[in-house]
Amino acid sequence: MALGCKVTVFGHTRHGVSGNLAPLEDRFRRVLGEFNDDRAVATALQGQDIAAHFILASTPVGSWETPLLTVETDLKPSLRFFEQCANLGVRKVLFTSSGGSLYGPQREPTSENASANPFNPHGIVKLCEEHFLRYFREHSQLASDCYRIGNAYGPRQPLGRPQGVIGAWIGRILDGLPIEIYGDGETVRDYVHAADAAELMTYSLRDLDTSETFNIGSGQGTSILELLELFRRVHRRNFVCLRHPRRALDNPRAVLLSNKLLEHFPGFSFRDLEQGVRESFAWAESQRRP
Amino acid sequence: MALGCKVTVFGHTRHGVSGNLAPLEDRFRRVLGEFNDDRAVATALQGQDIAAHFILASTPVGSWETPLLTVETDLKPSLRFFEQCANLGVRKVLFTSSGGSLYGPQREPTSENASANPFNPHGIVKLCEEHFLRYFREHSQLASDCYRIGNAYGPRQPLGRPQGVIGAWIGRILDGLPIEIYGDGETVRDYVHAADAAELMTYSLRDLDTSETFNIGSGQGTSILELLELFRRVHRRNFVCLRHPRRALDNPRAVLLSNKLLEHFPGFSFRDLEQGVRESFAWAESQRRP
Repeated sequence: MALGCKVTVFGHTRHGVSGNLAPLEDRFRRVLGEFNDDRAVATALQGQDIAAHFILASTPVGSWETPLLTVETDLKPSLRFFEQCANLGVRKVLFTSSGGSLYGPQREPTSENASANPFNPHGIVKLCEEHFLRYFREHSQLASDCYRIGNAYGPRQPLGRPQGVIGAWIGRILDGLPIEIYGDGETVRDYVHAADAAELMTYSLRDLDTSETFNIGSGQGTSILELLELFRRVHRRNFVCLRHPRRALDNPRAVLLSNKLLEHFPGFSFRDLEQGVRESFAWAESQRRP
Repeated sequence: MALGCKVTVFGHTRHGVSGNLAPLEDRFRRVLGEFNDDRAVATALQGQDIAAHFILASTPVGSWETPLLTVETDLKPSLRFFEQCANLGVRKVLFTSSGGSLYGPQREPTSENASANPFNPHGIVKLCEEHFLRYFREHSQLASDCYRIGNAYGPRQPLGRPQGVIGAWIGRILDGLPIEIYGDGETVRDYVHAADAAELMTYSLRDLDTSETFNIGSGQGTSILELLELFRRVHRRNFVCLRHPRRALDNPRAVLLSNKLLEHFPGFSFRDLEQGVRESFAWAESQRRP
C-alpha cells in the first residue's frame, strides 16, 4: 500500500495472524475463504496483476509424519492457485519458499546456486512448487519470483504456534511455561526480521515480466543455545528450559547468502537480531495487557 | 532371476508390455492390480527385500496439460508405494527416474551433480519422488537407489505408444503411417538400450543398505535428424516424415554422463545405437508376422 498498490487480502479468518491487519481494515479489499476453495480463490485473484502466496499450508514439524497430507493440503491447492493465476490474467506470482528446509544440511552459508536437497515433506513440497512455477512460466507465460526465506520473526508473529521458535518461546515465557529445546542446541538458523523480508520482496513489484529466485537471509547463523543466551539478556525474568532428544526432522544448519537480491538494494543492512527480539517481546507484552 | 533372486511382478494387466514376460511365466510370482490399489500393492510387496518402481505413471507429453492429474496418478501412488515399502520391511527401493526431463535444458553432457531444473510435470514429479525417497531414508531407514535413465529403447519396447520415439517410429513405419517430427529436428537425446540399463541397475542388488543416485546414459547425444538418418540406413523401404511446429514441452537437449555408475562396472560399454535399432526392427517385424 505504501508503494501505491491496491491490495486484496485473502485468508480463511478475520482473526489470528490476519488480526494484525485490523488497523488498516478500511484501506484494502478482503476476501474470506479456504485455500482449497477454488471459487473463493478466483474471487480474490480477479483483476490482480501480482499474486503473493504467503499461505502457511505445511510446516517442517507438522509434515514430518504426514507426507501424503502435505501433498494434499499444500502442493495441490498451490498448483490450483498457480493455474488460476495463469487463467485469470495475473502477470506474476510472488512465492515464499523455505530457506530453512530447501537446501538440506549445508556447512557453509548457502547461495541460490547450492543444490537443493530437502528431506522433510514441507521443504520437498516447497521445492516442488518452485519447479511447478517454472512449468507455468514455460506453459502459460506466468512470471514468478521465489523467495527462500530464513526463519522470519518479529512483532506480530503469532505466539501460540509451534512453528517459529522466537514467537513460540516468547508466548510460552509470557504464559509462565517452559520453553523447549530439541537435541544439543547446536541447530543453527538464520533469523530474519519480517520487516526486512517484506522490504526486500518489494523487488517483485519493479518488473512484472521477470522471474527470479532469491534467498532472504542475513548470512549470520545463530544456534539455539546462542538464541537462548540472547533471550536471557533481553528478558531479565527467570524462565525454565526443557531439553528433549534430537528430532530427525530438524535440518542441523541453514544459513543463507542474499547477495543476489541485495545487489538491487544498495546500502541495505539486516536488522539486529537482539533488537528485533526486544521489539517482539515489547509487542507481545502489549498484547497481553487487558 | 539370472542372479538367483526370487521375483514378484506387479502390474495391471497380463497384456501390453508385461506380455513380454510370457515365456518366463512359470518362473516368477505375479500379482495383478492397479498402482493406486494399496491392498494389491501390499500383497506384491509382502516378503520382498527390494522393490523396483518401473511403473510409467506419467510421460512428458501426457503430463504437459495436466499438472494436477500428474500429482494424482504418479506422485501420490508413488508416495504410498514408498510408505508401504517402509512399513512392510522392504530394505531398498530401486527407483527409475527421468534422465531426459530432470536436468532441464543443459548444453553439456550432464553428471549427477548438475542442478535439477525440470519444467514438465513428469520431470518435476519424478524429482519430487527422488526427494521423498530421501525423506523415507531419514524417517524410516528405507534405502533407495535412483537411476536417471536417458531414452530407453530396444526389442520388446511397445510400438503403439506416443512415448518412446524409437518404438513409436518403428510401429508407425511398419503400419505404413508417417512418422512425426516436432520442431527443427535438433532436439538431442541420449538413447540407451534397455539391456544396458537393466544390467547397470543390478548394482542395487550388491548392497541393500546403501543409497545412491546414478545417471544411465551413453554420453552420446543423437538429434532427431540424426535418428531419422539412422532409420533410413536401417530400414531400406520408403517411409514418410511429417513435420510439426516445436512443442514447448520438449527439453531441447539431454545427454547424460554415467561415470559414477560405470566405476562399478569395469570394461562396460554401451551398445551401439544403430545395431540396437536394427534389433528393435527385427523384433517388431517378428511380432507382426501372423
